[in-house]
Amino acid sequence: MSRHADRVARLRAILRKQQLDALIVTSLTHLQYLLGFTGSHGIGIIGRRTAAFITDSRYQAQGARQVRGARRFITQRPLLEAIAEHRCLSRVTTVGFESHHITFQQYRVLRRTFPRVTFIPTTGVVEQLLYVKDPVELTALRAAMRITDQVFEEIAGLIRPGMREKDVAAEITYRHRLHGADGDAFEPIVASGERGSLPHARAGDRVLRHGDLVTLDLGCTVKGYHSDLTRTVALGRTTRKMREIYGVVREAQAAAIDAAHGGMLARELDAVARNVIAGAGFGDAFSHSLGHGLGLNIHERPRVSALSKDTLVPGCVVTVEPGIYLPGWGGVRIEDDILLTATGCTVLTAAPRDLLVL
Amino acid sequence: MSRHADRVARLRAILRKQQLDALIVTSLTHLQYLLGFTGSHGIGIIGRRTAAFITDSRYQAQGARQVRGARRFITQRPLLEAIAEHRCLSRVTTVGFESHHITFQQYRVLRRTFPRVTFIPTTGVVEQLLYVKDPVELTALRAAMRITDQVFEEIAGLIRPGMREKDVAAEITYRHRLHGADGDAFEPIVASGERGSLPHARAGDRVLRHGDLVTLDLGCTVKGYHSDLTRTVALGRTTRKMREIYGVVREAQAAAIDAAHGGMLARELDAVARNVIAGAGFGDAFSHSLGHGLGLNIHERPRVSALSKDTLVPGCVVTVEPGIYLPGWGGVRIEDDILLTATGCTVLTAAPRDLLVL
Repeated sequence: MSRHADRVARLRAILRKQQLDALIVTSLTHLQYLLGFTGSHGIGIIGRRTAAFITDSRYQAQGARQVRGARRFITQRPLLEAIAEHRCLSRVTTVGFESHHITFQQYRVLRRTFPRVTFIPTTGVVEQLLYVKDPVELTALRAAMRITDQVFEEIAGLIRPGMREKDVAAEITYRHRLHGADGDAFEPIVASGERGSLPHARAGDRVLRHGDLVTLDLGCTVKGYHSDLTRTVALGRTTRKMREIYGVVREAQAAAIDAAHGGMLARELDAVARNVIAGAGFGDAFSHSLGHGLGLNIHERPRVSALSKDTLVPGCVVTVEPGIYLPGWGGVRIEDDILLTATGCTVLTAAPRDLLVL
Repeated sequence: MSRHADRVARLRAILRKQQLDALIVTSLTHLQYLLGFTGSHGIGIIGRRTAAFITDSRYQAQGARQVRGARRFITQRPLLEAIAEHRCLSRVTTVGFESHHITFQQYRVLRRTFPRVTFIPTTGVVEQLLYVKDPVELTALRAAMRITDQVFEEIAGLIRPGMREKDVAAEITYRHRLHGADGDAFEPIVASGERGSLPHARAGDRVLRHGDLVTLDLGCTVKGYHSDLTRTVALGRTTRKMREIYGVVREAQAAAIDAAHGGMLARELDAVARNVIAGAGFGDAFSHSLGHGLGLNIHERPRVSALSKDTLVPGCVVTVEPGIYLPGWGGVRIEDDILLTATGCTVLTAAPRDLLVL
């Protein structure tokens, strides 16, 4: 059975359990996962035995190449209206739709077009399939992470006082592409000096200075799969406080990576890192969760936070990214991506984790 | 009155006309337009007399700096649930929401949280305000277009046989940022040789060859406003057929720019270019519409197509982008951005329009 056929079979098992005759797949990410389609406009209708895929003429050739195991239709009309035209829902009564991935307007079109169908809002149906990565997915994730490691190494070689944060971000984006990524996984974060205290700072006009700490948070996509790496580097010299705080974050991350194993609760892993940081007196300065799942989405399940109810099943890929942020001073974050195994974890990113003074 | 206050006042006039007590603004683009907020997470509630803005703690400082004329609230909960907490809808009965910009799941949260409110799906309410650009918007649009003109000039200087399409795309992205853009307006299109026949081809692994035509479609954003420019260039030499087809597209575009004026129907402008191309025998090879509105969105009203019912009001900004696509041979597209005036139009992009042989 092909990998997409296997995924569709697992989806069908869920449909049976939830007593749905079909699921309308409007998330493009889910469409890629289930049917292999990577274009920007399409929907899938996965029934208990049949499957259909609808796109427009721009994607006719691409759809024919990528999508197997589903009837393919081309339309010039809004995709949801085209379902009727092609009778993709003609023999069903109870149909699920992805309530997080459909606009209210699209829902209205469905209701109007199929007055006799009972539509059931669903959440998390395909998402639960994404949880554990298969070997093909891991290959793409590793490829993305290898490129990001390489780009970090190059950035470490070129970053210097006098550059603007924006210039560094432009180099990251450029180099991700040159090394074969499809693009950035997210807008690169380059937060220098006191701006390092903003965990989500975008790269701005601030000019890097001798003596700055600079937090670089970068990632790319390969075949839709995301990498996510953060390093904090020092320009020219470090103070005792910088070294102390870096050491605490480094230790918190190492403790979490040491403790991580398949089957543990995600919140237990969060606690391992959080306890190290709190024990050093910086508990309030670690203001976000330890990490998040990573795959076709830059943020997906499992959540690795103090409130998470998720379990770190073997085969999950998550980030481990503790940080300390001190307003007016700056911040340190160190982030790697790990694959959970039955007995521990494999760290997938390889950039050096000790404080680089450049 | 500040520019945002003026926009909110014009929205309130529409609310009165549509008998809505308030509009819940979930589109981030619309939130920027109405309240000036440029972050990635927030909602607005614009009532007849009051306004509220809700975001999370990441955007507390940014919200305080950017958003005037609305009460500001910070929440850690889902934004729509926080509306109740802050009593932003406590005295209203009929509330519009943006049905194209809200997920079904968000709609459910609204319904559940406010069982006594009548929610009315709306379409196109804020969109109609975006139609005509004000001077501040035009300044940002011109800034984006100037950067893209500059990047095209640089790309024309460096493009050469042996580069991959992807390498050219990486240069475009890099240079947009270096010149101060926030980022690309869209994934740059670099379509060479026979790939030029795909109007929406992404840059791929194809290596540019002596004798290729190469279509470059690029744009950036400045303060949220988009530029959009296409040029087709020749590498090294041209054939008679290339020059003929380029000439037809060039003439079609010039005719449309000559004919454009405020008050005309958008479909009349489409017809001007389409008639030139059809008259030269390539009618079937111009397979898309002539253009689209441009502003805070890369595609917005008015549509400039054969079926459009929109009018080109003075103050609109639209693209004019005729093309000829011949499967197996390649394609030519020339695209500029114009501002409609009462008596004609101003071309906002300045890259040379004659065929460049590089």
